[in-house]
Amino acid sequence: MKDSDFDRRTLLASAAAVGAGVLLPGAADAAARRVDVTAIRKAAEAGKAETVARLQEWIRHPGIAAEKWRVDESCDFTMGLLREAGFQMVRKVPTDGSPGIFATLDAGAKRSVGIYFMYDVKQVNPKEWTHPPFDATIFDKPGYGKVVTGRGAVNQKGPESTFLAALHAFKAAGRKLPVNLVLVAEGEEEIASPHFHQIVHTPDVMAALKGCEGVIIPDASQSETGAVEISLGAKGPMEFQLISSGEHWGRGPKGDIHSSLHAMVDSPVWRLVQALNTLVEADGHTPAIDGWFENVRPLTPREKALIIEASTKQSEADMKKAYGIKTWINDEPWPVALQRLAAQPTVNIQGLVSGYMGPGGKTVLPGRAEAKLECRLVPNQTFKEAEAKLRAHLIKRGFTDIEVNVSGGYDPTETAEDSRLIRAEKAVCARYGIDVAISPRQAGSWPGSVFTQPPVSVPAGQFGLGYGTGAHAPDEFFVIDSSNPKVLGMVDSAMAFVDLLYELATIS
Amino acid sequence: MKDSDFDRRTLLASAAAVGAGVLLPGAADAAARRVDVTAIRKAAEAGKAETVARLQEWIRHPGIAAEKWRVDESCDFTMGLLREAGFQMVRKVPTDGSPGIFATLDAGAKRSVGIYFMYDVKQVNPKEWTHPPFDATIFDKPGYGKVVTGRGAVNQKGPESTFLAALHAFKAAGRKLPVNLVLVAEGEEEIASPHFHQIVHTPDVMAALKGCEGVIIPDASQSETGAVEISLGAKGPMEFQLISSGEHWGRGPKGDIHSSLHAMVDSPVWRLVQALNTLVEADGHTPAIDGWFENVRPLTPREKALIIEASTKQSEADMKKAYGIKTWINDEPWPVALQRLAAQPTVNIQGLVSGYMGPGGKTVLPGRAEAKLECRLVPNQTFKEAEAKLRAHLIKRGFTDIEVNVSGGYDPTETAEDSRLIRAEKAVCARYGIDVAISPRQAGSWPGSVFTQPPVSVPAGQFGLGYGTGAHAPDEFFVIDSSNPKVLGMVDSAMAFVDLLYELATIS
Repeated sequence: MKDSDFDRRTLLASAAAVGAGVLLPGAADAAARRVDVTAIRKAAEAGKAETVARLQEWIRHPGIAAEKWRVDESCDFTMGLLREAGFQMVRKVPTDGSPGIFATLDAGAKRSVGIYFMYDVKQVNPKEWTHPPFDATIFDKPGYGKVVTGRGAVNQKGPESTFLAALHAFKAAGRKLPVNLVLVAEGEEEIASPHFHQIVHTPDVMAALKGCEGVIIPDASQSETGAVEISLGAKGPMEFQLISSGEHWGRGPKGDIHSSLHAMVDSPVWRLVQALNTLVEADGHTPAIDGWFENVRPLTPREKALIIEASTKQSEADMKKAYGIKTWINDEPWPVALQRLAAQPTVNIQGLVSGYMGPGGKTVLPGRAEAKLECRLVPNQTFKEAEAKLRAHLIKRGFTDIEVNVSGGYDPTETAEDSRLIRAEKAVCARYGIDVAISPRQAGSWPGSVFTQPPVSVPAGQFGLGYGTGAHAPDEFFVIDSSNPKVLGMVDSAMAFVDLLYELATIS
Repeated sequence: MKDSDFDRRTLLASAAAVGAGVLLPGAADAAARRVDVTAIRKAAEAGKAETVARLQEWIRHPGIAAEKWRVDESCDFTMGLLREAGFQMVRKVPTDGSPGIFATLDAGAKRSVGIYFMYDVKQVNPKEWTHPPFDATIFDKPGYGKVVTGRGAVNQKGPESTFLAALHAFKAAGRKLPVNLVLVAEGEEEIASPHFHQIVHTPDVMAALKGCEGVIIPDASQSETGAVEISLGAKGPMEFQLISSGEHWGRGPKGDIHSSLHAMVDSPVWRLVQALNTLVEADGHTPAIDGWFENVRPLTPREKALIIEASTKQSEADMKKAYGIKTWINDEPWPVALQRLAAQPTVNIQGLVSGYMGPGGKTVLPGRAEAKLECRLVPNQTFKEAEAKLRAHLIKRGFTDIEVNVSGGYDPTETAEDSRLIRAEKAVCARYGIDVAISPRQAGSWPGSVFTQPPVSVPAGQFGLGYGTGAHAPDEFFVIDSSNPKVLGMVDSAMAFVDLLYELATIS
């Protein structure tokens, strides 16, 4: 979407025409669908105020898994939203952590489509926010239009509300969905989904999912240029904390003591530094855990080609500016850096906590030191393998005293480029005239592997038009009415979901 | 002080008798002194309420150098206290940091004695305190007696107030001091005295100090068994922070970014871990900075003998219990561990700060990581040498991007065992029947080297009876009236300072 004179209204009209002519099997079906879609759009527009109010109320019902805060309340609220949107069966699925949700909408259709929701949100530091993060304030943001701000606005309640808006529009227009829906939701996405497999592997949930064409996680995937990237997969995370303590080690102090005693008392902090130092190579980024690359599959020629193609559609300068970065690893050129972004498994330190953390110094020998780490795994590494190798690596080097607390994680996910799901998504983008880049693998993670791997084994991926930003950061927001002609607002994005469901119902 | 039936009143009476008979040069002088001391004791007892109130008000005027908080106010308050105690000249000495104080009390005596005061206190976390840290609450503490609690109670305002109480008692009794006093005070002891040399090296301050028998830092040095350890020296500290940041490095992010980007973006946190890891040997405690041991002087046979003797007077079990420690470095036996405590120079990590520090994990690649460290130097290392070697060590290994912020420090200090100062201190303890251990070197630090080294070159050391604990910790307190017969209260401790001044006036 490079054309700065792009006119969305024109485009939408032509897209509808193209869609009707090219993508439907027969002229009669096409005509019927055109009538249906027109009615659904009218309903979506009429229901806009309710759609926005629903999203605001959802933001006002946060659940933060990392803090075990308001999780049950958020789960119950989400279940109510699903019932209102037309799911006939909505059931809470207990896990060893936050509860999940299983819901089905039987439209009497031939095909079924899976939907993944998360109802939890990332932690917040309210002091960093312009508007209180759970107020769901609506305001006009220059360059974007009418937006709602709040934690979860884009990650992931805005896109999920947009999908629900599509279902409400079907209902209000008195139209049946062209596919049946099987929805699973979790409340621990932000802590790396430690119990999501328990939800998906519940026998009737699994049976329902296995019958789906694929699983969609609603997303707001347009960039500010309107372009969309469709990912064929994502890395798998392993979240863990390494803790060194006098208490567990049996050496060093139990609590913080006067620093002068380090002359005769061991330091759990140095112990942690030495253990950490074994985890990456001297280059400061290549994982050095024994056997880490054993099952790593290099990028295929097709994957490399896709990345090189995608690199021409993304602005290196914009990304450097957005992230405050001067240079990539090894000063690599943009297409090479993007290949590394997709290909390299990582071991990252997210945080360090020990002893005195205020201004200046304070003369203590700390009794405890914690490093918060996370690995990102690539095919064909597995979460189970990674945990076992990490533990073996530390034990082999004598760090048996270091506590390894694996708090979440799952395998990387992959979906075939020629699956119906991906082809349907591309078709919808094409109808809207949207520039699509196919990314073989996101560097970030979502728990798609529980769908794409046995025993479920169906395609899965994020999809959705529209825009929002600020996930995991302050002032997260989601666009309701877009003032940028290249980017869709909430009603138009809901209609893209309507189109996708029709597409999935009929694509060969 | 091993006798559990020890009666302090009896002891004080006999000590006075012994002192009068043994330590004074002539019978007439002895008789005169006895009369003086009796009058001074009466005055000290009469002035007790004022002494305690003075200490409370001082605690209520804190100055925290690390936070640049209420420092000037605390300096002015301290200057007022000195004037009230009889110093005829009290002058503020500007430095590049907190101001210092220079004060003199001319008693027309032959000899002069230096006094070191600090008026700053350590940081506090009020939530950790039973009583607000700056309220100076007085209460009865079972096993101790009447105590005052607050930041600075023992470190160092309680002992300093006890010394001032001695001066007030001289004044109230209409007695001249047997020595002149030269006092220097600083407000940055708790940040390792970065500007104290500027105070001491002011020409008239230096001239006055050079004429002193030695410099005393008032202390409450009795243990709960009543025993006293007199230190002949102390290690020198070097406080510093190592900071790795994307901003300074030119690699990695400026702020915290999404952790998945570590696949293409360098990590300032790994960079810091790698730099840190070069600073100690694999044993986790021996400094590995290039050339670190070049000037380290091993313990002399006399120093070893003193430590072995002292080790019999200290309870290893009590110390392990107090600090929550199961074993010393290398599982060394108590006398060996105590030798290491005195002999080993250290590089200690006081704190680690980076990225996400709350519960669980959070998917960020931090833009900055800071380690708060401190070295303890032993003779003949110097602060200047240590800083130069640390910087050279990091530069040699390519860590030119790591910011080295040396926030304070000074040389180790040593005073001869046969100096008048040490002999006078021992004599006072002997008169009180107090068990004395001579420690060749404290593992902790105080800026005595500015006195003991050229250009001043006079003996210097902590001294004082009485008890308090909790320096740098919550619920710090200082004993006013001791319910433990082995430990002196504030009035008796003030009288020990009176005795010390007489001793220093006459000792050959």
